[in-house]
Amino acid sequence: MTADQRRAWAYLSRVVEPPCPPLDALVAERGPVEAAALVRRGEVPDKLRELTAARRELDCTAADLELLDRRGGRLITADDDEWPQLVFTVFGADAMRDRPRGGAPLVLWALGPGRLDDIAWRSAAIVGTRAATAYGEHVAADLATGLVEHEVAVVSGGAYGIDGAAHRAALAGAGTTVAVLAGGIDVFYPAGHSALLHRIATSGLLLTEYPPGVRPARHRFLTRNRLVAAVSGSTVVVEAGLRSGAANTAAWAAAMGRVVCAVPGPVTSGASAGCHQLLRRGAELVTRPQEIVEIVGRMGELAEDPQHPVSPLDGLTEVERTVFEALPGRGGATVEQIAVAAALPAQQILAPLTTLEIAGLIEQRDGRWRIARRAAG
Amino acid sequence: MTADQRRAWAYLSRVVEPPCPPLDALVAERGPVEAAALVRRGEVPDKLRELTAARRELDCTAADLELLDRRGGRLITADDDEWPQLVFTVFGADAMRDRPRGGAPLVLWALGPGRLDDIAWRSAAIVGTRAATAYGEHVAADLATGLVEHEVAVVSGGAYGIDGAAHRAALAGAGTTVAVLAGGIDVFYPAGHSALLHRIATSGLLLTEYPPGVRPARHRFLTRNRLVAAVSGSTVVVEAGLRSGAANTAAWAAAMGRVVCAVPGPVTSGASAGCHQLLRRGAELVTRPQEIVEIVGRMGELAEDPQHPVSPLDGLTEVERTVFEALPGRGGATVEQIAVAAALPAQQILAPLTTLEIAGLIEQRDGRWRIARRAAG
Repeated sequence: MTADQRRAWAYLSRVVEPPCPPLDALVAERGPVEAAALVRRGEVPDKLRELTAARRELDCTAADLELLDRRGGRLITADDDEWPQLVFTVFGADAMRDRPRGGAPLVLWALGPGRLDDIAWRSAAIVGTRAATAYGEHVAADLATGLVEHEVAVVSGGAYGIDGAAHRAALAGAGTTVAVLAGGIDVFYPAGHSALLHRIATSGLLLTEYPPGVRPARHRFLTRNRLVAAVSGSTVVVEAGLRSGAANTAAWAAAMGRVVCAVPGPVTSGASAGCHQLLRRGAELVTRPQEIVEIVGRMGELAEDPQHPVSPLDGLTEVERTVFEALPGRGGATVEQIAVAAALPAQQILAPLTTLEIAGLIEQRDGRWRIARRAAG
Repeated sequence: MTADQRRAWAYLSRVVEPPCPPLDALVAERGPVEAAALVRRGEVPDKLRELTAARRELDCTAADLELLDRRGGRLITADDDEWPQLVFTVFGADAMRDRPRGGAPLVLWALGPGRLDDIAWRSAAIVGTRAATAYGEHVAADLATGLVEHEVAVVSGGAYGIDGAAHRAALAGAGTTVAVLAGGIDVFYPAGHSALLHRIATSGLLLTEYPPGVRPARHRFLTRNRLVAAVSGSTVVVEAGLRSGAANTAAWAAAMGRVVCAVPGPVTSGASAGCHQLLRRGAELVTRPQEIVEIVGRMGELAEDPQHPVSPLDGLTEVERTVFEALPGRGGATVEQIAVAAALPAQQILAPLTTLEIAGLIEQRDGRWRIARRAAG
């Protein structure tokens, strides 16, 4: 990534409240540098001009990137290898486009040694109420411990209660844990979890769509929840009241076609009422970490269990998947370039390319293949 | 019922270990009096002669009936109005015939003011482990209290733990409760529940397939469980270990196409492990009595919810059901007799009779209509 591109991504990250499909479309068409210049000058379609009007003249890019560098963080975009392109195809699901704020992230701000693409292939979200009971915290910790023993990363929201218990147990088990934040990477929230979030940033991954300094807000928690669900093979609700943020994360996971799990508890406990409601609506009942590992394991072996569709890529052969993954996250590539990226002879990728095109996953223009807008989200 | 018939039924009840489909077939063909005489003389097909060889010369009929009369009890057979013919069509389900001991009961020994046919139309079984926790007993009592408030009868097995908590709460709520026994009506088991069973016999119903004096035994508990499931619109497991009698009752209910419910509990509690296993296999999760009332309510309104088939009679119109119910439990009837029983003009029942015949529920021979063997079980 050039310095220009990096500044452009940072600028674009702040100029709208994410997600913003019209901005994604512009970036996909013109690239980040040109898109940023057009937005800055207001030379964009009406709708997007409106969405960017408030912040287009605000440029904190230099300060934002300086802060990021000082903390040892990085941007992750579709231009990076670390971008989990295949996992993010979930944003192309019909149910996601029907939901407000269901768009894909454009830029992720990241801090920590964990690689997002690796993590997102073998991870589970453990989420739940801040007002957890001793039972809920015990079960969250037990599940997280078992998951990291099986090399499944534990994703959560960094909150008090269930989230905190899951993160802590994952750290104690020397596993990978990811906290997805609803504000800037420098805004540790809740304040009482500063030390915990710092530890996660040191050994796991802090992740957010929001540029530095942005404060968490109610709508940002809801938007953040979709990202928790997206980077997790399955979302497991441990304890939740009837109307809860965890239920919101579960709804995102369901819209993405991901398996939603819930842990039962005493029917006399209000903290389990949301879990029981999810279970009555079809969530998978889990009692042990192994049951979650089984579900998450299927993520990496997409074609093997047709009962759990998790992406439009289900049913692809190994070669087709390899070819798909070899396409760049943004822009197009020639057959030769794809062959190099896939480490396959060019003639062996022609049939897979055709299959992928028929499946609507990729498209060809002027001799260059690209991921179809719908598949990429 | 004539005195002869009554003696015949009592004799037939003891001469085999129920259920015994070959004996059912003989009784359906020849009537109880003749069937009893044939069995006594050994003039029956080989298979049945073998099954009745040990007890055919044993005749405790006079003593059995004297005991029954002294206690104020009664026999219930297909000859009685109280026989829940429609509910017992579950014994005709394919899955029931494939299961050992899946046959219909031939004779029921009953004690108490509750009418079995009324009860079986609006009832739920509440079953579970004898080694119940305080949580389990609390929930069992809570569910039973709510059920009887909604005039749903509470069926159970009279055992310690969950069963006892359910019976007691139903009695405390002045509702109807049924204990289905694995031994004779005069054998109160467990002994510590003598007073409880006596109270049930006074205000509800004690029910068993076994003649007086028969001791409960392991295979009789398993056989009894099928009767618990049969007379209950739904079977609700409150607490159960991984291999438990309650899971056996649930398996019977499932084979009958009845809705199996389970109450979740802490995943850390072994007493809830069987419930969680049932839930993972598709049982309905219930947390409140209202949820069970809704399911049981569907029993009386069979055609309304196609998602929960409970008998081969699903989908019949009101008139067809009335006509079906007007057929005698055993033997045939003319159109005129059925019209009288259904309180409908004879010409109005011809079309329903044809529909029922096409559905395989009834059959015609020599101008007389009868319930098809398969539908009656």
